[in-house]
Amino acid sequence: MTQSLPSAAVLGARAFAALQGLNRFTDEPGKLTRLYLSPSHRQAAEWTKGAMEVAGLSAFIDAAGSVQGRREGPVSGGPCVMIGSHIDTVKDGGRFDGNLGVVAGILVAQALRDAGIVLPFALEVIAFGDEENVRFPTHLSTSAALAGHYDPAWLDSRDADGMRLTEALVAFGGDPSGIPKLVRKPGSVKAYLELHIEQGPVLEVENEPVGIVTAINAQRRARVRVTGEAGHAGTVPMSLRKDALTASAEMALALEAIAAAEEQAVGTVGVFTVEPGAANVVPGSVTFTVDFRSPSNETLTRMEAAIRSRFGEIAARRGVFLDIAVYTNAPAVPMDAGLQDALAEGVARAGGNGTARRLPSGAAHDAMAMAALCPAAMLFVRNEKGISHSPLETMTEADAGIAIRVMLEAVLELARREN
Amino acid sequence: MTQSLPSAAVLGARAFAALQGLNRFTDEPGKLTRLYLSPSHRQAAEWTKGAMEVAGLSAFIDAAGSVQGRREGPVSGGPCVMIGSHIDTVKDGGRFDGNLGVVAGILVAQALRDAGIVLPFALEVIAFGDEENVRFPTHLSTSAALAGHYDPAWLDSRDADGMRLTEALVAFGGDPSGIPKLVRKPGSVKAYLELHIEQGPVLEVENEPVGIVTAINAQRRARVRVTGEAGHAGTVPMSLRKDALTASAEMALALEAIAAAEEQAVGTVGVFTVEPGAANVVPGSVTFTVDFRSPSNETLTRMEAAIRSRFGEIAARRGVFLDIAVYTNAPAVPMDAGLQDALAEGVARAGGNGTARRLPSGAAHDAMAMAALCPAAMLFVRNEKGISHSPLETMTEADAGIAIRVMLEAVLELARREN
Repeated sequence: MTQSLPSAAVLGARAFAALQGLNRFTDEPGKLTRLYLSPSHRQAAEWTKGAMEVAGLSAFIDAAGSVQGRREGPVSGGPCVMIGSHIDTVKDGGRFDGNLGVVAGILVAQALRDAGIVLPFALEVIAFGDEENVRFPTHLSTSAALAGHYDPAWLDSRDADGMRLTEALVAFGGDPSGIPKLVRKPGSVKAYLELHIEQGPVLEVENEPVGIVTAINAQRRARVRVTGEAGHAGTVPMSLRKDALTASAEMALALEAIAAAEEQAVGTVGVFTVEPGAANVVPGSVTFTVDFRSPSNETLTRMEAAIRSRFGEIAARRGVFLDIAVYTNAPAVPMDAGLQDALAEGVARAGGNGTARRLPSGAAHDAMAMAALCPAAMLFVRNEKGISHSPLETMTEADAGIAIRVMLEAVLELARREN
Repeated sequence: MTQSLPSAAVLGARAFAALQGLNRFTDEPGKLTRLYLSPSHRQAAEWTKGAMEVAGLSAFIDAAGSVQGRREGPVSGGPCVMIGSHIDTVKDGGRFDGNLGVVAGILVAQALRDAGIVLPFALEVIAFGDEENVRFPTHLSTSAALAGHYDPAWLDSRDADGMRLTEALVAFGGDPSGIPKLVRKPGSVKAYLELHIEQGPVLEVENEPVGIVTAINAQRRARVRVTGEAGHAGTVPMSLRKDALTASAEMALALEAIAAAEEQAVGTVGVFTVEPGAANVVPGSVTFTVDFRSPSNETLTRMEAAIRSRFGEIAARRGVFLDIAVYTNAPAVPMDAGLQDALAEGVARAGGNGTARRLPSGAAHDAMAMAALCPAAMLFVRNEKGISHSPLETMTEADAGIAIRVMLEAVLELARREN
C-alpha cells in the first residue's frame, strides 16, 4: 500500500528529528565540530549509511569518505539524479550547514519510495566529507573525486598535527588507491541538486523561505600595500602628510562604492594592518585585503579595473605608493538553467507564489565541483539573521519542510521531462 | 683681551664638534640611546658639567639628575635668563633632539664670556634629563622639579625591569629627598629659552632655517570603538552590511577633513585594529585612536564637537554602534609674547629677513613645564625631511650655527631691554 507524498510540515518535522540524530556526532562535546576524516565523521557516515538504507537505498562509504546511496531506475547502472551535500562541519559550526542537504536527499528518497513512485532514472543521495576547508588545506576534494578532478597531491597535504591526508583516510577506513575509481562517466549523472542553508540574510530580508541559486560567484582576492611616510602625529602638518591610513581608508570606501554599484556584487576589506600602529605616529604603511565577488566574471573584471583605477588615482593624489597583488582568481560557476527551472517548478508546486527568488551564492559548495561533471543546481533555505559557521545558525522547521518539498517536486519535474 | 662674537658658521662648527663629544655616550653601542638615569646619562651629564665649566659657568648635577650651570650677574643670587633643553634620548634616537639645545646654551655662555659681555642678569644653562617619556612613565619630570610641580608619586613609578625611579635616581647619584629643594622662586627666572630641532617638515618646506614657537599645542586623544556586524564576505549583500571597517574608514577621513579645515591643527588615526580580521569576513568591530592637536584650546573644543557630530552621523547612517572615550586632554601652553619678539629680533640681527616664521609645536618640550614658572619661548631649527626620533634625524651645520647665533642675539636683546 502506497502513501501520498508527505506535506512540507511533515518533511520539516522529519528533517529536524533526523538532524538531532546526525548531530550527536562531534569531535568536541558541547559543540558541533566534525572535521573531515575524524572519528565523529566516521560515526556520522555510518549513521548516514543506515539512514539511507532505511530509506530504501543501497549505501556504502566510498574510498574518499563520502557516503553514497542509490536506488536503481529502470535500467540497472543507468543514469541517475543525485541529491547531495556534506556532513563535515567547521569548528563549532551550525546544525544545518551541509547536514540538512544530506538529510533532505534521504527524506526525498524515502518519500518517493513510500509513495511507490517509479522514477525514469536512478536516484542517488550523497554525503560528501571535505567541503569546509578546515582540517586540511583541501576543499571540495570528495566531490572533486566524483567529478574527476581530484589532485593526487592533496593526499600529501597535512593537518595541524602534521598528519597526512592519506594516513587520515586510511585510519578513517577509506582507500587512497580507490579514489581514481570514484570518477563518474560523463552522462552518468543527469543532474546534481543540492539544498543548503543560505549562510546570508537575503531570503530573510525578502521574506522568502527558499531561493534558487543562479551561480556560485566568481571571486578575486588581492593583497594591497600602501606605503606613505610615517611621521610625528603632532608635528607634521596635514598638508605635508603622506598618511597611509587615510589613503587606505579612502580605498576601502572606494571598494565599497564599486561593489554597491554592481548588481549582486560584494567587496570586502577584511584584514587591515597598520604600521607602526601607535597613537602618536602618522601611519607609514598599511596592508589590507580586498575580496570581491560577483556571479559574472565580466563584472569582476570590470570591478578589478575600477579598483585599480580608483586606488591608483587615490595613491597618486596622496603621494603614496600602491602595490596590488591578486592572489585568488576563481571564475564563476553558473548553475544549470534547466535545473533552476525545475526547482522553480518545484517552488510553484510546493505552494509558493510561483516566482521563486533567484540569487547567487557568495560561498563555495560541492555543487561547484559537481558542475564540472554534470548539470548542477542549488536551493537555498532562509537563514535566520544570516548567521552561519556559528552555533547560532538556525532556520525554522517550516522553512526546512518547504525546501525539502521543493526538492521532491523538482525530482518529479525532472521525471516528467523524461516522458 | 676680548673677542668679537663668533659668526653663525663658527657657532655651527663648534656645535657639531661638541655634539660629536656628547653623543659618544649611549646605552646601546652603534645607536644613540640614552635613557633617563642610565649609566650613559651619567657620563653625558659629567661631560656636560665639564663643558659648562670650560664655558665659564659654575656647574653641578642636581638632585633630579639635571646639569645646572650658572654665571652670576651683577647681584649674586639675582634673577637669571636660562637656556636649556634635555640630554636624554629615545631608543635609537637622533643626534640633535635635546642635545643641540644644551650645546647651544653652553656655546652662547662661552661666546658671551669670550666677548667680555657683562649681562644685567645671571645666565644659566640647564640640561634636563627626563624629557622623552621612555624609561619611566614620567615626562618632563626634571623641568617640573624646577617649576614646582614635581609629583612625589613619580618616584614610585617603575621601568620595564621593575626598578623604581627613586632607586634609579640613587644609583645615578641623585637624591630623591633633594628634589623639593630644586624649585625656583617666582621671579627668579626672568626667561627660559630653548632651542630644539623642529621634528617636523614645516621649516624645510618653507625654506626657513629657524622658526619661533608660538605655543605648545593643546592635545586630546580618544579611543573610538565602532561595533557593526561580522558576516560572510561572500554572502552578505552590500545593502545589508553593518561593516565596522568602512564606517571607521569614513570616520578617519572625516577627522582628516576636520583637522585640515582648521588653521595649524592636526588630527591622526594611528592605531586601527580590526576584529575578526580575516580576508573573508566583513569586520564586526574596529577600535582606533584619534589624536588631535591645535595651538588653541577653543579650536580643539570645536574639533571635538565636530568629531562627535560627524562620527555620530556616520554611525547612525550605517547602523553601527559608536563609543568615543577621551583619555588625554592637555591644554595649550602659549609661549611668552615678549620672548617670541626677542627671538624675532635675534633672527633679524643674525642676518635673517626680519620676519621670522612663527609656528606652533606639535610635540611637548621642557619649555612646556617651565612655562608654569616663568616666561618661556622656543626656537626651532630646520629638520631635514622632518625626520626625528630616528638615527636619520639631521640638520645642516649652517642652520645649527644660525640658530645658536639667534639665541645669542636674543639674550643680548633681553639685556638691552633691562636698560
